[in-house]
Parts: sequence; structure tokens; C-alpha cells
Amino acid sequence: MPVTPVMITRLESCVPATAEDLLVTEEPLEIRLGHGTLDDRKEFRLSVTMRTPGNDSELVLGFLFTEGLIGDPAEVLRVEHCSQVKPEERGNVVRVELHPDVEVDPARWQRNFYTTSSCGVCGKSSIEAVHVLCQRRIAPWGAVDPPMITALPERMRSAQTLFKHTGGIHAAALFDRAGQLLLLREDVGRHNAVDKLIGAALAASLPLWDAILLVSGRAGFELVQKCVVAAIPLMAAVGAPSSLAVDLARQQGLTLVGFLRGDRFNIYAGGT
Amino acid sequence: MPVTPVMITRLESCVPATAEDLLVTEEPLEIRLGHGTLDDRKEFRLSVTMRTPGNDSELVLGFLFTEGLIGDPAEVLRVEHCSQVKPEERGNVVRVELHPDVEVDPARWQRNFYTTSSCGVCGKSSIEAVHVLCQRRIAPWGAVDPPMITALPERMRSAQTLFKHTGGIHAAALFDRAGQLLLLREDVGRHNAVDKLIGAALAASLPLWDAILLVSGRAGFELVQKCVVAAIPLMAAVGAPSSLAVDLARQQGLTLVGFLRGDRFNIYAGGT
Repeated sequence: MPVTPVMITRLESCVPATAEDLLVTEEPLEIRLGHGTLDDRKEFRLSVTMRTPGNDSELVLGFLFTEGLIGDPAEVLRVEHCSQVKPEERGNVVRVELHPDVEVDPARWQRNFYTTSSCGVCGKSSIEAVHVLCQRRIAPWGAVDPPMITALPERMRSAQTLFKHTGGIHAAALFDRAGQLLLLREDVGRHNAVDKLIGAALAASLPLWDAILLVSGRAGFELVQKCVVAAIPLMAAVGAPSSLAVDLARQQGLTLVGFLRGDRFNIYAGGT
Repeated sequence: MPVTPVMITRLESCVPATAEDLLVTEEPLEIRLGHGTLDDRKEFRLSVTMRTPGNDSELVLGFLFTEGLIGDPAEVLRVEHCSQVKPEERGNVVRVELHPDVEVDPARWQRNFYTTSSCGVCGKSSIEAVHVLCQRRIAPWGAVDPPMITALPERMRSAQTLFKHTGGIHAAALFDRAGQLLLLREDVGRHNAVDKLIGAALAASLPLWDAILLVSGRAGFELVQKCVVAAIPLMAAVGAPSSLAVDLARQQGLTLVGFLRGDRFNIYAGGT
């Protein structure tokens, strides 16, 4: 399990005690991209992210898909850890091999997609940029069933192994239409947790178009973007959404639930 | 105030009601960098971040400083909103003018600093990369005073205006050695809240070398990095630290407190 034990000083009512604590492990992951024809192989460094080791292939697949860099998981031939690296880097460098038919523009891929959108820097243009990435339309969820929705956070928490040990990790969970847990992923980074989850769902050909995404934190624009690009129809967050996240959800037909706690929740978009 | 009102459906015990809700505003900010001599002016797009509008100059100053792109706030001549942009982008594009003596390598500046570190991709090399950025050594904090530390979260919360209205925003606060609040900043992004805070402290010449940084969430590597580069001696988080954050704190002499809740907290590094 990706946890790291440390000795700490624990204070309660001003009384100190030495104790062992378990921390969630955080390490950088470098993603290298291989592409081109057999006669003309190219490789470049796509990105580096701070993540919790484990499920790296899913992380890469989900990242490429939810950022709109690939439109179909079949465009990825393989993802593997590089062995030709320094010993201390082993496990922290992965190489993605893309299908030769995929067109790759390193200049575009190495930059954040906002910076490459030619339509400007404002909320409206951010939403338009996501719209361009959406190859699939969301199938509207319809009415939200309160008892089903309010049962989800507890189901996610009981399945979380890393949170139990460390108390400090983000979670993302996928549920079917009836509220049954399909998949759960945890990571030190909220984006990584969602990317791992969506990557795993793609690899297992789960029906994202009829699923629910639940996140343990807030619903900012970039997380809602990932949900929209994956065409998941219902996203729920334990925390609050941002203004731009709600705008994007409403524009794309995503049902967005926030502040999902106990028997209470808010519906910010869709749901009727 | 950067909040956006929306009409939502609020559900409590399965009973729906229409209500007005306030969301924290999220908009992209593009940072452009101007540099070079009078005869040879250059400009390039440095980055785009999703942030809560307001305190943009502080955000830029803090970002440049905590990412190690400048070593002294005096290297920034001015930060201003660009007027030569489309109407809908107004307020979302800032231009930083650097002192002509500052050496700027666009290729290095436009990439995340991990990717430019030649020392590899592992926890050890990430810590070494931060070490290179540290122009000032941390003055060790010494023993942590429990009643002083446990009083901080409530002082931060009472000063938070956006959280009161929206319930969904990250906060970062700066306190002096006695635990008196010096500054508070809120943002939809946790990194932005810290950058705004440190940028404001630099602009006001506050003594960061003798201050406390409190964050409302978790203490991951990148937030601890910002604290270390700013040479703030004590960092406290309401949430958990990661393994790499603790390693970095120990290596750099930062006192790191986590899980600061009620009369309890953990000391992960320093503090004796």
C-alpha cells in the first residue's frame, strides 16, 4: 500500500506524545509520449505530476482522455514503466505508445489546453474550449433520486483504504444508476484520483455514459471538465462547486450535485 | 466580492426547495511576461491559472517568487491588467514587467520546474530541486507553543469572508510569532491562496522569516515548497501532509504541523 510510516509528536490538550503515523505517499510521475511511424519514432516528455504511486497506467490513460489529447482509449497501444532510468527514478517514469495514426503536435500537447485555445481567456471561452473536446454528448440523467444519492458518500468512505490509514487523501468513485459502487481510486491529488478512476473505467469498458462520479472534495472547473469530456451524466461532490463549474455543467447537460452531506444536498445543474 | 449568485434546488430529508446560493467565482488568469532591454522588448505567455478574481498582482508576485522564477520582489517593475484584449477577457490578462537585468529563459520559465530539473524524477530529486531555489535559509522556529497554535484555525475562519458566503473556498493565513493574524487570502485554488498571501506579504515587506503560514486544507509537496522557498519557519495545515512534504520540511528545517483541529495537532517536522 502506498503509505509511508513516520515518527511524529502528537499533542492533545497540550500533552505531547511520540507516535507512529502513516502518511500518504507522494512521488513525481513523468509521462513520456512515443509516437510516429516505425521508420520515424519520436519521443517527448509530456508532463510531470505529483501523484500517489500505483495505478499509473490508468492515470495516464485517464489523463490523456479527460484532457482531450486522445478521443478513444484504442489510440493508446501500451503504457509501461521505463526501465532505462536511474535506479532512484524507477517506477516514476512511464512511456505511452500511441497508435501511428494519431496525430501528435508536441507544442500543443505540452501546453495546458487553455493556453492553446485561440478563443481567449474568459469563462465563456474556457467552456467553449471544453465543448470542442467533447466527442460524445451527455445523455441527460433526469430526476435525481434523493435516497440513492445520499447513500453514496458512506459507500465511498467504507471502500477507501488509504483514507482510513492516513486521513489525508482525495477519493473519486464511480457508481451505477442504482448507486452501486463500481470503482474507487484514491490519490494525493484530486485530479489524479479522477484520472485514475476514468482510466480504469475505460480500460474495463464500463458504461461511463450511465454512471455517477462522486468526488471527496470540491467541484472546480477542471474536475467538472474531466467529467464532461468523459460524458458521465451525473457528478456529485461532497464540497462546493465554483461558478464556472456550474456554468459548464449547465451548458453541457451535466447534472451537478454539491454539498452532499448526510441527508442534504444541492442540485446546481440538471436533475429535473 | 467575487461571488456569483445562482438559483438551485436544495434537498433536505428528500424535500426539495428552490433557493438562491452564492458560488465562489472562478475565472482563468493569463500571465504575460515582458522583459528585455528598451531596444529589444519581448513578451511571452507564462501561464494560465484558474483563480478567483481579485488580488491578481499579489497572485503574480507570489507565484513568481514561490516558484523560484524571481529571487527578490524588486525584480518585478510592475504588474498590470492588459487593456488591449477582447472585452470579455478584460480583467483576466495581466502583464508583468521585469527589471531589464533579470535573465529570462522562456523555455525554462514556461515549463514546470520539475521538468527542467536535470537531476531526475524521484522524491529525492524533487527535494534537491527546491533546495536549489532556496536563496534564504529558514531560521528554525524552536518549540511549538500548543495554546498559540490551536488558536489559529478559529482566527482564520472568523476572518474569512468568502467562505462564510460560499462554504467552498481555500484559505491561507499569515500570523506573527504571537499568533496574531497578519494577512488572509482566499481563492478557489489552494496554490493561488498561498501565492496571493505570500505576494501580499512581499509587497508589504512583512517579516516572512518570523511568521506562521496556515492553510485550510492538506499540506502537499507543492504547498510546502512555496513555504520553504519563502523561508517561512512554521507551516500548519488543518489537513494531513504527504510523505514528500514531510521529507522536504525535515530536510529544510521547516517546522510542520498537521491535523490542526480543536486542541489536537501533530508535529511532523521540527518543533523541539
